[in-house]
Amino acid sequence: MQLPERLQNVIHYFQKLPGVGEKTATRQALQMSRWDAEDLSQFASALQELRNLRFCKDCGNFCDKDLCLVCEHPKRKQSAMMCVVESISDLMAIEKSGDYHGVYHVLGGVLNPLAGVGPEQLKISRLISRINELRINEVILAINPSVEGDATCSFIRDKISEDVKVERIGFGIPIGGSLEYLDSLTIAKAMEYRRSF
Amino acid sequence: MQLPERLQNVIHYFQKLPGVGEKTATRQALQMSRWDAEDLSQFASALQELRNLRFCKDCGNFCDKDLCLVCEHPKRKQSAMMCVVESISDLMAIEKSGDYHGVYHVLGGVLNPLAGVGPEQLKISRLISRINELRINEVILAINPSVEGDATCSFIRDKISEDVKVERIGFGIPIGGSLEYLDSLTIAKAMEYRRSF
Repeated sequence: MQLPERLQNVIHYFQKLPGVGEKTATRQALQMSRWDAEDLSQFASALQELRNLRFCKDCGNFCDKDLCLVCEHPKRKQSAMMCVVESISDLMAIEKSGDYHGVYHVLGGVLNPLAGVGPEQLKISRLISRINELRINEVILAINPSVEGDATCSFIRDKISEDVKVERIGFGIPIGGSLEYLDSLTIAKAMEYRRSF
Repeated sequence: MQLPERLQNVIHYFQKLPGVGEKTATRQALQMSRWDAEDLSQFASALQELRNLRFCKDCGNFCDKDLCLVCEHPKRKQSAMMCVVESISDLMAIEKSGDYHGVYHVLGGVLNPLAGVGPEQLKISRLISRINELRINEVILAINPSVEGDATCSFIRDKISEDVKVERIGFGIPIGGSLEYLDSLTIAKAMEYRRSF
């Protein structure tokens, strides 16, 4: 049975979301066909409003004014620590852990020459100038482990002055994880990252 | 970290969708914050257009004119068979199997007095009048097995004249399923629905 075009349009856009295939998109669109007109138009205008989201001109985080709350915080600037992340979602995950008190820099992805992502697309030159401006003496590369992530870390390390301490976050067994079910790459990393106890 | 209000609005509406919790909604909204303005406004207008979806005045299926393609089809009307379903998604699943050639009736749910769903909310009187109008002599209750579904089936059976054959779809082991992993209610139903072989 052919679905009405109005539904197909909605399904088309739902499928652009991460982890949403045709089946989920159809289910969601069918559900929405039962929403009342007011909910639909408010959802629609909420989506339109996303165009007006503002990003911190320094770190790339969400913000209401020119700078985000992290960049504006005097103590966080004084820490002289900068954490480099791929995306705002990663930044939020670190903030949620509540264990880091420096500033951030959102790259907007990792180097991927095959997909056309080079250093210009990633605000890497802005990263280097911020490190100098803020007199950062410790950079934490909180970039996910992958071939592209590893390459991005090496590229950034080479661009940063030797005087600055550059570290990458630790890899190993996640808390609550079990050796039995983990892949061998993670176990190899956990062995490499072992510490005296 | 507090998310911008614009994102929170979008997350709020995503969470109304089936199977979408706070985490998925946040992930989807964050992803959409990177969409370009044109995609956002087209998605928004596609949502608005859902208000204009039309439903068949006879069976409740989607349609472009007054009647849906199934109700308009002369051969399907002649079949004198009617399949009663909870929702349009269930109707679509049956159409997809391609094994049924009668007309449908979409109830819009099942009886659930605690949630305020009585016979008036379910177009049950319309079902009875359609059965008479179309001189239906076989009604298939394709209603999902649950306490509410079973009650709805009994309620409908009592309302339909004794001359009409009323059946409920079969329950048992799904194709590709394995006895080992199925719940005992399904297995009990499969035993009950056994046939000579």
